[in-house]
Amino acid sequence: MEEKLRELKTRLGEIKDLEAAANLLEWDQMTYMPPGGAAARAEQLATLRKIAHNLFVSDEIGRLLEELQAEVADLDYDSDEASLVRVTARDYEKERKIPASLVAEMAKATALAHEAWVRARAEANYPHFQPHLQKIVDLNIQMAEALGYEDCLYDALLDLFEPEMKTAQVAQVFDDLKAQLVPLVKAIAERKDAVDDAVLYRDYEEEKQWAFGQEVLRRMGFDFERGRQDKSVHPFTIAFSPNDVRLTTRVYRRQFRTALFGSIHEGGHALYDQGLSLALERTPLCDGASTGIHESQSRLWENVVGRSRSFWTFYFPRLKELFPAQLEGVDSETFYKAINKVQPSMIRVEADEVTYNLHIFLRFEIEKDMLEGKVKLSDLPEAWNAKMKAYLGIVPANDAEGVLQDVHWSMGTIGYFPTYALGNLLAVQFYKQALAEMPEIPAQIERGEFAPLRTWLKERIHVHGKKFTPAELVRRVTGSELSARPFVEYIKAKYGEIYGL
Amino acid sequence: MEEKLRELKTRLGEIKDLEAAANLLEWDQMTYMPPGGAAARAEQLATLRKIAHNLFVSDEIGRLLEELQAEVADLDYDSDEASLVRVTARDYEKERKIPASLVAEMAKATALAHEAWVRARAEANYPHFQPHLQKIVDLNIQMAEALGYEDCLYDALLDLFEPEMKTAQVAQVFDDLKAQLVPLVKAIAERKDAVDDAVLYRDYEEEKQWAFGQEVLRRMGFDFERGRQDKSVHPFTIAFSPNDVRLTTRVYRRQFRTALFGSIHEGGHALYDQGLSLALERTPLCDGASTGIHESQSRLWENVVGRSRSFWTFYFPRLKELFPAQLEGVDSETFYKAINKVQPSMIRVEADEVTYNLHIFLRFEIEKDMLEGKVKLSDLPEAWNAKMKAYLGIVPANDAEGVLQDVHWSMGTIGYFPTYALGNLLAVQFYKQALAEMPEIPAQIERGEFAPLRTWLKERIHVHGKKFTPAELVRRVTGSELSARPFVEYIKAKYGEIYGL
Repeated sequence: MEEKLRELKTRLGEIKDLEAAANLLEWDQMTYMPPGGAAARAEQLATLRKIAHNLFVSDEIGRLLEELQAEVADLDYDSDEASLVRVTARDYEKERKIPASLVAEMAKATALAHEAWVRARAEANYPHFQPHLQKIVDLNIQMAEALGYEDCLYDALLDLFEPEMKTAQVAQVFDDLKAQLVPLVKAIAERKDAVDDAVLYRDYEEEKQWAFGQEVLRRMGFDFERGRQDKSVHPFTIAFSPNDVRLTTRVYRRQFRTALFGSIHEGGHALYDQGLSLALERTPLCDGASTGIHESQSRLWENVVGRSRSFWTFYFPRLKELFPAQLEGVDSETFYKAINKVQPSMIRVEADEVTYNLHIFLRFEIEKDMLEGKVKLSDLPEAWNAKMKAYLGIVPANDAEGVLQDVHWSMGTIGYFPTYALGNLLAVQFYKQALAEMPEIPAQIERGEFAPLRTWLKERIHVHGKKFTPAELVRRVTGSELSARPFVEYIKAKYGEIYGL
Repeated sequence: MEEKLRELKTRLGEIKDLEAAANLLEWDQMTYMPPGGAAARAEQLATLRKIAHNLFVSDEIGRLLEELQAEVADLDYDSDEASLVRVTARDYEKERKIPASLVAEMAKATALAHEAWVRARAEANYPHFQPHLQKIVDLNIQMAEALGYEDCLYDALLDLFEPEMKTAQVAQVFDDLKAQLVPLVKAIAERKDAVDDAVLYRDYEEEKQWAFGQEVLRRMGFDFERGRQDKSVHPFTIAFSPNDVRLTTRVYRRQFRTALFGSIHEGGHALYDQGLSLALERTPLCDGASTGIHESQSRLWENVVGRSRSFWTFYFPRLKELFPAQLEGVDSETFYKAINKVQPSMIRVEADEVTYNLHIFLRFEIEKDMLEGKVKLSDLPEAWNAKMKAYLGIVPANDAEGVLQDVHWSMGTIGYFPTYALGNLLAVQFYKQALAEMPEIPAQIERGEFAPLRTWLKERIHVHGKKFTPAELVRRVTGSELSARPFVEYIKAKYGEIYGL
């Protein structure tokens, strides 16, 4: 067994190296690459991804996995070795099922679709994008058929981001949540003047915003010896190893929320990546458990911690030192309410904690309907706008701020959106569990002590990497299943108090 | 033929993509990588280089090259297709000759040797490095034997950097040059007070130095849309495509020469890389003709142009605007002399235009003697110091500033040093030819017009990439062979005037 495991790890290590290199190509593309480099970069990325894919789906890896599956049967389920073989075999089977021709067709279709989407969105011209979307939907159906599924097409796609999560379960949880959130958003809308966030649109110097973000990241425990922060148009986090994790941030002088909460959000992702067990390095286990679990970490830090009263008890005096003029006459409580203002808006990425999930429900429902042919693509803008009206009480003025707003479909991705909402729910579920075990956490946060919470998250979640499915991990950490209830309780308590409901 | 060429190009294109990705990994390592990333980066680089090597020495590429060699025989020698097959076949044969075991042993030996060298240099302790150097020398001898050679071992190693250049030719040219330079350096040393460069050690703000360097690079014609400049400890230039060329610079407040002439030097390399024909992209021809030819471009811009009176006729007034306090009471002529001060010194990388080559002769002679067993490694420090005394009239106080100063041997590289001197000679040979064809170049430079010279270099040298051997290229451009004479004439005229000899 030792010999075969070593052979498997050698092969997987080289694949991981190629993926890390591809990640660096992407990071550079978003941060420092000059415009002229784009065409060559696309070729380089395609080549690296192709070689990595071909090496992974090789017969040799299949043979090693098959032989090792029997041999690791005696080991503990959560041992590094058994987990490596189990999880790699699962991914191997999935990747082997996708025909190379489909991958190639998807690459071609998305290159065209993305270009069309950029133009369509700029011109608020949905019909220009519609035929491309049709192609993307068709290819995703083919992908789902190739992968196989139990209940519905959507299962196969969702599984790519949330291993073994089922559409029916997501739909159930979302329905529970929707029933609570829609009336809550209405109630808050009626009291919208209870919170004024004008203070956040004053002029905050970029350098100081940047410095403050770094201060917060450092205190959260992001290790700048094993990572760095740069600027990019769209914030993201990417890792080349647990010892080299890069996050990016954008800074707007007159929108205070953007840089700080963006940094904390990406910082949450980055702590996950820095917290992965080094014993898993250069294996497929050296990764987050799923897209949703990853998002739970970013949301926990951004919202549950970063938008809490405890956090600002500690940080508001410091912020006032940095921005005395901007915050003159503003007290901690006013500031706390400002950063938590609820405002139904057209754009998902700008949505607050309460309305955010409603944007996701809409997309999840539309995606399912598209796959199942329940909505004609020509009717998509109307379907979108009707749901916006129903869930958020507002209607987009045009398709650029409606059905064309997200990049995901143009990239060929269907089934990803639910993971954002799952992340929101799990953030609260995990945090609730941490509180149950360590009730002193809020008091620690008030003193600027984040280490206990970070350590808890690291030990319970981060170190395990991709060993467990999301469901397994949630059960291990919280003792229960994914549920909307903790989130609903959290939102009702927090916003009931802020808005005096 | 079309079909086979396409197949060959596809394979070579993927190899080039892997090499470009490896180059990005290196660039990042030297510029932005956090310290924690080093170990993973070493693995990633090793994997990419290994895969690229294995893809290149594959039997399929050998077969394609063999079949194509007959088929391109009718095409023009300098056509893209014939050149691709000819040059790739040459490189293929070389790479195939080196056994994988030797590559692996070299990688292991250099990892240890480099570490030992860092410590040995820090402690000025040559005996600590000596056994590692012995290993490096032994492996280089094995390498030379594997590659094969006509006259001497050194031929095989030199050929890796200067294709088809012979040691005997280099030795002849160097001897000619040495006979002229040694007495010249002595004569200048006797008049060393004729030039005072104290002005260069005043306090020049980093930001302004950086801005000035960028201004110069822009005017030289470096295209910031297709490249960028960053900071690093050791300046270098690296390309991922002719449309994405990165150069780096270091800035010292109190050593004005470092940043500016470093930028111009790297800018010369970068113009070469940006000037490669796009028709050659993603092929092995998309590269410089040789290390020496590449160096000729950096030295031409740094020394022949950047240290010329014409250049400073244009730039001195601008520099004075930027640094009025530092340059108060200094005139253009004083400044011109200061940047051209000749001063025999211990350290090659800090040497001026006149003494630089003497450092190279010493290394070239010692490398040959090491390979041929003519010097015992235990006697190396004495051999080094004796040559320093003979050529430069000075003797290192310890081995850190003597035999241990360069990184090259610790990296396993023997046969590289001559290319620095070849670059110096060719810079002048090429420039002389440019002047013969366009006598107005100095007048253009006085007006800050670099485009005519840059265009000439691009059309004569850059666009051809690696199509020609250095000898072929020199003959095509200048109509003659590599020669020390133009350099000697240039140096004697320039420094005879500066020092009143």
